[in-house]
Amino acid sequence: MTAPVSRRSGGRAARKAIREAPLTDDVRPIRPGMEGGRYKPLSQEQVEQIHEAALKALETIGLADAPDSGVAYLTGAGAAQGDDGRIRFPRSVVEDALAKACKKITLHGRDPKNDLELWGSRVHYGTAGAAVHMVDVNGREYRDSTVQDLHDAARICDQLDNIHFVQRPMVCRDIADNREMDLNTIYACCSGTTKHIGTSFTEPDYVPPALEMLHMIAGGEEAWRARPFVSNSNCFVVPPMKFATEACQVMENCIEGGMPVLLLSAGMAGATTPSTIAGAIVQATAECLAGLVYVNAVKPGHPAIFGTWPFGLDLRSGAMTGGSGEQALLSAGCAQMHKHYGLPGGAVGGITDAKLPDMQAGWEAMCSNVMAGLAGLNMVYESAGMHASLLGFCHESLILGDDLIGHAMRCVRGIEVNDVTLALDQIAEVCMGGPGHYLGTDQTLLRMQSDYVYPSLGNRMSPKEWSENDKPDLIENTIARKERILSERSAARFDPLLDAEIRRKFNIHLPA
Amino acid sequence: MTAPVSRRSGGRAARKAIREAPLTDDVRPIRPGMEGGRYKPLSQEQVEQIHEAALKALETIGLADAPDSGVAYLTGAGAAQGDDGRIRFPRSVVEDALAKACKKITLHGRDPKNDLELWGSRVHYGTAGAAVHMVDVNGREYRDSTVQDLHDAARICDQLDNIHFVQRPMVCRDIADNREMDLNTIYACCSGTTKHIGTSFTEPDYVPPALEMLHMIAGGEEAWRARPFVSNSNCFVVPPMKFATEACQVMENCIEGGMPVLLLSAGMAGATTPSTIAGAIVQATAECLAGLVYVNAVKPGHPAIFGTWPFGLDLRSGAMTGGSGEQALLSAGCAQMHKHYGLPGGAVGGITDAKLPDMQAGWEAMCSNVMAGLAGLNMVYESAGMHASLLGFCHESLILGDDLIGHAMRCVRGIEVNDVTLALDQIAEVCMGGPGHYLGTDQTLLRMQSDYVYPSLGNRMSPKEWSENDKPDLIENTIARKERILSERSAARFDPLLDAEIRRKFNIHLPA
Repeated sequence: MTAPVSRRSGGRAARKAIREAPLTDDVRPIRPGMEGGRYKPLSQEQVEQIHEAALKALETIGLADAPDSGVAYLTGAGAAQGDDGRIRFPRSVVEDALAKACKKITLHGRDPKNDLELWGSRVHYGTAGAAVHMVDVNGREYRDSTVQDLHDAARICDQLDNIHFVQRPMVCRDIADNREMDLNTIYACCSGTTKHIGTSFTEPDYVPPALEMLHMIAGGEEAWRARPFVSNSNCFVVPPMKFATEACQVMENCIEGGMPVLLLSAGMAGATTPSTIAGAIVQATAECLAGLVYVNAVKPGHPAIFGTWPFGLDLRSGAMTGGSGEQALLSAGCAQMHKHYGLPGGAVGGITDAKLPDMQAGWEAMCSNVMAGLAGLNMVYESAGMHASLLGFCHESLILGDDLIGHAMRCVRGIEVNDVTLALDQIAEVCMGGPGHYLGTDQTLLRMQSDYVYPSLGNRMSPKEWSENDKPDLIENTIARKERILSERSAARFDPLLDAEIRRKFNIHLPA
Repeated sequence: MTAPVSRRSGGRAARKAIREAPLTDDVRPIRPGMEGGRYKPLSQEQVEQIHEAALKALETIGLADAPDSGVAYLTGAGAAQGDDGRIRFPRSVVEDALAKACKKITLHGRDPKNDLELWGSRVHYGTAGAAVHMVDVNGREYRDSTVQDLHDAARICDQLDNIHFVQRPMVCRDIADNREMDLNTIYACCSGTTKHIGTSFTEPDYVPPALEMLHMIAGGEEAWRARPFVSNSNCFVVPPMKFATEACQVMENCIEGGMPVLLLSAGMAGATTPSTIAGAIVQATAECLAGLVYVNAVKPGHPAIFGTWPFGLDLRSGAMTGGSGEQALLSAGCAQMHKHYGLPGGAVGGITDAKLPDMQAGWEAMCSNVMAGLAGLNMVYESAGMHASLLGFCHESLILGDDLIGHAMRCVRGIEVNDVTLALDQIAEVCMGGPGHYLGTDQTLLRMQSDYVYPSLGNRMSPKEWSENDKPDLIENTIARKERILSERSAARFDPLLDAEIRRKFNIHLPA
């Protein structure tokens, strides 16, 4: 009995030495852009049925309410405006746009190490949304969200390995003027993180001053255009099947300014799309295809993310819900359509209807996040921090989302099968004359860091250890981590000279 | 504007009427045994590589420690015992067993409405395990689990639509004698639920008295054998690659007594199986194939569930962990192997390492549960209530698990695609001259109950409603539901005459 015991101790000491060494990038078990796609909610035949229905919807129903400029672009591309004002799209027009469309999008970070490469089934998770409340976990309270909350969220995201981009998740309700709000949103996000940022614009006229600020941050227009680190989240459509006139004009301005566009169709199944999952995906697909024609008519090959974002509805109440199984299926089904077109795409995951970061929040957020990842969704938006069916944003949930998404991403990475991982030699060695366990084998030691993801805040103590350690509370520990992050000097902050210059030109609400 | 508004009100009234009608069985959105399988963590080539490696392991490494009776059965079937005592299995012996094995298992409930049909990718969720602690949520305390806790768990399961079977989840630590514990475990479960029950036996000698009790409950041996409502969860193997001598003898007795068997290989990746996911699946598959040869040598076609249950390990500490992404992949990968063989199979899902039903518990339990279901696992064991990496069981988590699993099962059901769900006509009607929304369409009303799953305890209120309703707390509401269930008279309880008879023959610890 002594031999195995001493071998085991040897294993422990070796494990201890390895785990104390910092992780080099090549052995990190997960990273942004891991390849998903092993979950296919739709058969190939079903994908084609949805595609055909979407084409037919574009051909026979079309979209209303395009702005004049859009009518010109779209009819120029071969679409036709009917007597009813609707723009209808012959199949060939859609096919032309699909041929021209940008198939590989790089979303730049202000720091190139945070660049995201959107193609294939590469999966990225990040924030998004327009929450109007901040969730105060300590006080169990919902209050208006502010620009400081937004900036803090960006700073927190900057420190979380598994949050890969920062699309504006909440509205700065302390800034009444929409122009100032839009500009301060960009400032609050960009000064908080060097990851890619997504934002939206209330009016087309707010795009030029935003570009002015972005040129300053980038160090000139040329530098901005070379590596645009902010994209425009654009609700170009008001489902069902109507263009959002002003948002389309915003989009034209963003394309002109070299800003990537997220073509966002945010219908609600049962209210603004059909109540069936398939029907909601058909309509969202049709709408985004119309958007794709539009973008490529304005500028062929301009980077545009195919943003089919159908939401669930609680049909009993008519209120939105984002934490359901139906929601998870909607997004996973959309991911498969993106792949069918070979287009970089995004949809929602991670939303909860829970008001606080409780068990419901955990199961709802995981379900849609892991299914989106397994389906190979390129951009999983709203994946952390969103509560109350998108009405509230919570910093603590965002931080816990880092653990949750790391866990999901490990699943996306999947199972490697080769002679080494099949481990037949190891099984033989351990069982026949060996120690009868695998604790000290080289393979076990080697895999400890390269194959396994460990939670930061998730607790794996035994009940005894947990009790001896005063029963650590998940939320209290998360609050402590939040305070630690926010107390540190952010590496993403602007150079003081640049900051002063921006503040001279714009009314920045955040204190200097 | 008045027309759409009045139509919308009409829709609301109609929805209200429909939602107040009780759900008939044909419109229930989810039910036990929905077909999964759209998630395939392994490619077909990888499945075959694992299969080949498992066959090779059986051929060249084999299993040690078979009891004498097992050696006779196995060599009788064509396996060979080497000088080292290990039983090795030529490929043809495994293929013979696969040909003979029971491919369609019905797990009976004491009430036939609870029968489970295990084949294809039909998915069922239930409890299992051997927790030694009960989680006291109010006191944030772990205490020894008792026979009353077990009985209460069975009674709670009986009331939860999405818990489909009740395998004993915890050990009655208040019963010191193992024989009495095993018999009281059966009594506590059977008197609490009419769903299918799983249990285990400490020694082979305890099987005959258990069968005696089961014959009494069934109304005679013939009735028992016609519809055995208890199966034997049998750890026939001590990984790596050793038979568990006594458990094999238990198994022989159970087969003799007409009791279905769960062939349970519970290795731990990195300790008792290789640390790689593929290697752990290879070894579990090899072990269960050996068990399959054994069962079919004792009695060809005896119902045996292929129980590849590899667990994860935290390689840093060497302690078990069940709440990881690696765990979810282990179980989903196993599900695919079961399907490769066309055998009814089971593995674990739903475990959390969290000590309490917090957000971590939610995300961990959902991840492995939904992935197991999407992979088409027939039996998802330990899917609700298991905390602290299986050391603790929690009634409140069990109840919340009903919501969580309902949500997962909705995802398993997947996306239906046909002319009606594609909804092209509906889109046309709504958009062109219609109301511009889908709230009042027939399809929306019809789908409200047949397509959508609503949580019982999960909260979908808006922040305003939530606040007006005194901010309902998830755990407090769950405790209230638990108390309500346990205060009601159970329909599963035994007839008083039968109960008295059982109590005359056996030392029943639960009060009459």
